[in-house]
Amino acid sequence: MPNIIVPRPMSGFPELLPAEQIVFNRCLEIVRRTFELFGFAPIETPAVERKEVLTSKGGNEKEIYALARLAAAPGEDASTDYALHFDLTVPLARYVAQHKDKLVFPFRRYQIQKVWRGERPQAGRYRELYQCDIDVIGRGSLSLLADAEMPLVIYHTFTQMNIGPFVVRVSNRRVLQGWLESFDLPPERISAALHAVDDLEKVGAEAVRASLLQKAGLSETQADQLLRFIAESDRLPTDALLQHLRACEGNATFRQGVEELETVVQHMRALGMPETAFKVDLSIVRGLDYYTGTVYETRLIDHPNLGSVCSGGRYDDLAGYFTTEKLPGVGISIGLSRLVLRLLEAGVLKPGAATPTQVLVTTLDPQQLREYLAIAADLRAQGIPTEVYLERARIGDQLRYASRKGIRYAVIAGETEFSDGTVKVKDLARGEEEVFFREELAERMVERLLP
Amino acid sequence: MPNIIVPRPMSGFPELLPAEQIVFNRCLEIVRRTFELFGFAPIETPAVERKEVLTSKGGNEKEIYALARLAAAPGEDASTDYALHFDLTVPLARYVAQHKDKLVFPFRRYQIQKVWRGERPQAGRYRELYQCDIDVIGRGSLSLLADAEMPLVIYHTFTQMNIGPFVVRVSNRRVLQGWLESFDLPPERISAALHAVDDLEKVGAEAVRASLLQKAGLSETQADQLLRFIAESDRLPTDALLQHLRACEGNATFRQGVEELETVVQHMRALGMPETAFKVDLSIVRGLDYYTGTVYETRLIDHPNLGSVCSGGRYDDLAGYFTTEKLPGVGISIGLSRLVLRLLEAGVLKPGAATPTQVLVTTLDPQQLREYLAIAADLRAQGIPTEVYLERARIGDQLRYASRKGIRYAVIAGETEFSDGTVKVKDLARGEEEVFFREELAERMVERLLP
Repeated sequence: MPNIIVPRPMSGFPELLPAEQIVFNRCLEIVRRTFELFGFAPIETPAVERKEVLTSKGGNEKEIYALARLAAAPGEDASTDYALHFDLTVPLARYVAQHKDKLVFPFRRYQIQKVWRGERPQAGRYRELYQCDIDVIGRGSLSLLADAEMPLVIYHTFTQMNIGPFVVRVSNRRVLQGWLESFDLPPERISAALHAVDDLEKVGAEAVRASLLQKAGLSETQADQLLRFIAESDRLPTDALLQHLRACEGNATFRQGVEELETVVQHMRALGMPETAFKVDLSIVRGLDYYTGTVYETRLIDHPNLGSVCSGGRYDDLAGYFTTEKLPGVGISIGLSRLVLRLLEAGVLKPGAATPTQVLVTTLDPQQLREYLAIAADLRAQGIPTEVYLERARIGDQLRYASRKGIRYAVIAGETEFSDGTVKVKDLARGEEEVFFREELAERMVERLLP
Repeated sequence: MPNIIVPRPMSGFPELLPAEQIVFNRCLEIVRRTFELFGFAPIETPAVERKEVLTSKGGNEKEIYALARLAAAPGEDASTDYALHFDLTVPLARYVAQHKDKLVFPFRRYQIQKVWRGERPQAGRYRELYQCDIDVIGRGSLSLLADAEMPLVIYHTFTQMNIGPFVVRVSNRRVLQGWLESFDLPPERISAALHAVDDLEKVGAEAVRASLLQKAGLSETQADQLLRFIAESDRLPTDALLQHLRACEGNATFRQGVEELETVVQHMRALGMPETAFKVDLSIVRGLDYYTGTVYETRLIDHPNLGSVCSGGRYDDLAGYFTTEKLPGVGISIGLSRLVLRLLEAGVLKPGAATPTQVLVTTLDPQQLREYLAIAADLRAQGIPTEVYLERARIGDQLRYASRKGIRYAVIAGETEFSDGTVKVKDLARGEEEVFFREELAERMVERLLP
């Protein structure tokens, strides 16, 4: 008898029971189907990249997990060239640069994979999490139509997931960028000011004002002007805001930002995006300097604490570290693990059955096993997930097994049924029973179960 | 401008182009659907386990990838407690032991995940690969019905994948075990003899005979007897073989093995397993001593070099390292990466389109963009994966884009069509064109595209 190793949960590595996993997979499937509905093609990159690839953009090395063999072969080093990817953007950049001559551009790809981050685990932080990304990559240039599609994909996805009202907030980084340029600030101060604004929702206007003064070096007048501009914008409905922006004086960057934003809004409407599902919000700038134009964040109205559940934006150059070819693109990323696990905790998403089985064929009379197995085969042939109760047990225990797993129907056949050529079907949700002729069973169950 | 890091393929970490990825995902989806049809519930465990969990069964430490942070925080160690799992059986054992009070037994689970092995890459060996596992776990005991279901799940899966003829070979380890016990060998020699027989297909009878003599310590007469027994069995059809086995003298283990094998074959037939899809083959013993009863291997008849593409068996005790509770089970595992990638190489599985898009809405007249976007929205509302051509380009270039991606239909509308209230649909596979009224387009495309 070996020593028993008592299994303990691993902090930051979420693990679900079957009923929760089924909910998670349903959400994953909605994401996948929606991405495909919009013509995004699946790719999957290895869980690892070469270390030099992952650190090219200057990722936090303390949060990257590298691989080393648990034991080295004699005379060899246990270390490897590989580390686990921490997002799907760096792998995408590497993939596109590596395979670009075999891809057709604009390249529309989706990627749904786990990523790993060596963070200190704390509430809501995961070390292993699913990301669901779409990007459209152009070769040399890319139309703003691509920017307009992104909010629509988010809209379709979250509507189908049935997780309550949400708003996709859209802006264009050039608007505030241009505004700040007119203060004659050097680029690093502009970047600092944008980072400060990015925190607005989290820390409030007073704290942002302090950062604008101290970190970005704005004057008090400039900081107040900027914050007033953002606050006023926030109060205006879309068309009034766009009109207001058009009327503002501004440099070329500002005007380009306003024009792009307006085009994206027009295209979004033409694509069928409802007015209630989006909002132009100039405070959205995304922390990363990587983004250059359109930017998005998405919030669940009833769950503001979750922060943005789907973010992204337009970038001028996807893969500058891996190729000299200019590859502009636009993309979004859904942090699915955090979204689904938090909504499960909050009771917005509710675990149902612990199995995909829809019919349990009970085995009342061991002599009739062959017939029970044939019934199961018939139901499966119609595409109905079916289980046969495997063990010898009283019918009450068999039905209890079905109830505990959340199986909807139980097929019961004993002496009476076999002599009549019938079967009994018990609806365990409603406690009702029906009797069918054996040969019509599969058809009746199809009517009840398949859409 | 940063230094360019030229991306290179990572040996042993397969990566596919979109058209191949679509084939892979289709196979994955067939596996998932079939597992669910038989009532297996999804679970997913983290990619990592604690090192002590992974090494509990004595895995090869040189082939296990451990995680260490790429850089340590000051005063901290970069190493972690975690390593990547190398199969899905150890994680299942840990999962069941950890959560057993929340699971309903018999517990039927499937798990489709990547596993990682620090192997030296060579032809057909992967360091990252997908495994697709099902297991049924009992609490204390488990009926042989569970053993009979496994080949049927394999049969349904591979039939739908359309990868040519295959045979699930079934045996029961107790048959040869009992035969060897009658030679009065100690347990470690019996184990050595079973390992020798496991190599029969790979190395041939002469080499196995040598191993039986040298490693297992059988006499020449015993080795010849055993090999003759296996060879004779191989020539007999199922029922004749079972009859032959019933007539053999043997100890209690042998008789139990024969009886179980016979029961499993009867149940398989009752479940609808075709005679051509399975074969009783006493040379199947599986290398692992972990298996105690029924064992399976699956070969593609036209691709013998692939070896077994789906193997598994019955075990007395799943989680002896993690709990004192006895949890017998039976399971199989499909090595999906090797199967699909090799069949892609062999041309058995053929890459088709490089996108899920079925209709490309071309954008002939930029003034009519709003209408093109509305057409796309209509088609998507019917569930048809649709793309709008994003860039300004001549219609020839737009159609070429569709052809290169393997998109089947292109919607074309210019001056004539807009004034007539029609649209033209070009079938790019057949080179045919049809004209529809704008308002009937979606319906017509549904007829053509959705089953």
